[in-house]
Amino acid sequence: MKIDGRRYRSLWPLADASAVEAIDQTALPHQFVTRRIADLEGAIEAIRTMRVRGAPLIGATAAYGLALALRRSADDSALQAAYRALLASRPTAVNLRHALDDVRSAVAALPVAQRAAAAWARAGAICEEDVALNQRIGDAGLPLIAALHRRLGRRVNILTHCNAGWLATIDWGTATAPIYKAHDSGVPLRVLVDETRPRNQGAALTAFELGQHGVPYAVIVDNAGGHLMQRGEVDLVIVGADRITARGDAANKIGTYLKALAARANGVPFYVAAPYTTFDWTIQDGLTEIEIEERSGEEVTHIAGRLDDGRVARVALTPDGAAALNPAFDVTPAELIDGFITDRGIVAANAKALAEAFGRAPISA
Amino acid sequence: MKIDGRRYRSLWPLADASAVEAIDQTALPHQFVTRRIADLEGAIEAIRTMRVRGAPLIGATAAYGLALALRRSADDSALQAAYRALLASRPTAVNLRHALDDVRSAVAALPVAQRAAAAWARAGAICEEDVALNQRIGDAGLPLIAALHRRLGRRVNILTHCNAGWLATIDWGTATAPIYKAHDSGVPLRVLVDETRPRNQGAALTAFELGQHGVPYAVIVDNAGGHLMQRGEVDLVIVGADRITARGDAANKIGTYLKALAARANGVPFYVAAPYTTFDWTIQDGLTEIEIEERSGEEVTHIAGRLDDGRVARVALTPDGAAALNPAFDVTPAELIDGFITDRGIVAANAKALAEAFGRAPISA
Repeated sequence: MKIDGRRYRSLWPLADASAVEAIDQTALPHQFVTRRIADLEGAIEAIRTMRVRGAPLIGATAAYGLALALRRSADDSALQAAYRALLASRPTAVNLRHALDDVRSAVAALPVAQRAAAAWARAGAICEEDVALNQRIGDAGLPLIAALHRRLGRRVNILTHCNAGWLATIDWGTATAPIYKAHDSGVPLRVLVDETRPRNQGAALTAFELGQHGVPYAVIVDNAGGHLMQRGEVDLVIVGADRITARGDAANKIGTYLKALAARANGVPFYVAAPYTTFDWTIQDGLTEIEIEERSGEEVTHIAGRLDDGRVARVALTPDGAAALNPAFDVTPAELIDGFITDRGIVAANAKALAEAFGRAPISA
Repeated sequence: MKIDGRRYRSLWPLADASAVEAIDQTALPHQFVTRRIADLEGAIEAIRTMRVRGAPLIGATAAYGLALALRRSADDSALQAAYRALLASRPTAVNLRHALDDVRSAVAALPVAQRAAAAWARAGAICEEDVALNQRIGDAGLPLIAALHRRLGRRVNILTHCNAGWLATIDWGTATAPIYKAHDSGVPLRVLVDETRPRNQGAALTAFELGQHGVPYAVIVDNAGGHLMQRGEVDLVIVGADRITARGDAANKIGTYLKALAARANGVPFYVAAPYTTFDWTIQDGLTEIEIEERSGEEVTHIAGRLDDGRVARVALTPDGAAALNPAFDVTPAELIDGFITDRGIVAANAKALAEAFGRAPISA
């Protein structure tokens, strides 16, 4: 999508293939900075500090990180060590494991000398596949929004949480792909953007990318969505996911579950947009089987923003020495999800429908 | 309650009765500053800019504001003009109207020359009554917490939203009165403090007052409560209210409704603590009959905090020119409320129980 009228992806390989370049998302929306990732350590640092974030982009970055690691040493033990180090960089997103498995299996049978180049090519293919998947998600979700517009006869108000936008992927986004497709095809809409504390990916990233693309939006605090749904001011919720179980429980950014409860209580359709790579067919019960990352309490007690003079500064929000808890994700049970918007179309949130759509035999719980 | 070991109230008359002094809550938790309110305009400014906030404290401040206005002119038209100006300073809290009605009816039959002094005395009595009401709320709620402790055999985790603490009242607080009473009587507990965007009254004020009193707490983002309830890490929710209808719908700080939904979905008891002055017997349906204040979008797009050098600064969180919506309150329907903790004891959230507890004939809807 576009920034200042110029087309960008969130991550791209340099022309000489010496490294990849990524938009540093910790600097947005106040500064547009890109960072070079030239080795394994750089990839891990970028993932862990959330310079790159969003399940699909984490996967793509990890794939390139593995490819870069293999340039230093590509024997089996080096491959395994790099795989493990990258896998540990963020625990919740399943795309990370998918991408690492993908690259590893593409190179494991090759002679050591060919592995680094093959991994690099495979990482590039993962990026291209991500773009294609998101386009298909957009095509699957567009009719939902267009139908709402026809039924309501007015602008469609779509609430989203966190950033499942193009910055969370390579391009298009997951939750935003149907929104961009609908906007581009002339369906009048407005996005209600949850600011998404503690890291404010909504206020910082989703607002930024929608604004750059010209999509109408309003930022709201995470507390406001329930009230707006009660008043009929939300027509549809679309969020992304970091991991979805075989029966359809979805882990996503902390706070998603509260919006799903409010949507159900107020008859607002609640959809989760995700490619097949976000599904983890090995687990059923999201509440007991998905590890939820606990991040530093400083993300709660402090926040960064832009001072009046343009400098970016971090300020404390709490009394000195305040204790804080910071779970990063929550799990929305399948029964609160009206459907998944996927690269295979819209799929109901149950084990049977998901298994059929993705060509798998359902695993009994 | 105490700040730095010294007893404070949130608002107190000067010894010479020339003005009242109030803790400036917009400066907390970073600076402890008090402000003198010496006239009607000062009272309105303090309420509107939220230097004083919380339904009971707004009422008390307005009562003193009316008394101060009558010193300038106490004839019927001046009384009426001051009443109206104060009533318009915040639209949602009903305590404001209660307090103004109280002072007005205490002085309306008096000769003009006696009105200012009588109003001043009545404002003082409203403050003393508030303290007594909150103590009774504390006594009513303490057994709830003590019983949970006995049943669970461990520390009780109590989630609260916004600041319904002593800073929102004259002393003790509403939601916090049972917590202070339980803590002071040795019941082990921890308060999970919703930060309460956009104005962060939880992170700034509730954390401050609990910390000063020595009550264990942890600040969480507003997004986290649902997840913690799913995991069994919340045993009880107690919040305050700005207005409660005759059938028990409760308007409180934006986001309260989402916590009520999550509490119900996870079997966590959800209580609203409030004195009789918060009930508005003239209305039934909170969703259609309570005006919800819309505040400036700048409260969403910007936030103030403490820089590393100790100065307080405001930072922007969103892209330049970002649009924002900022409804300040929401309404939690009576059916999601397990009970009201009031100065008349614990009362079920329905018209009949409330009318019985408060000695009123129920009004049919």
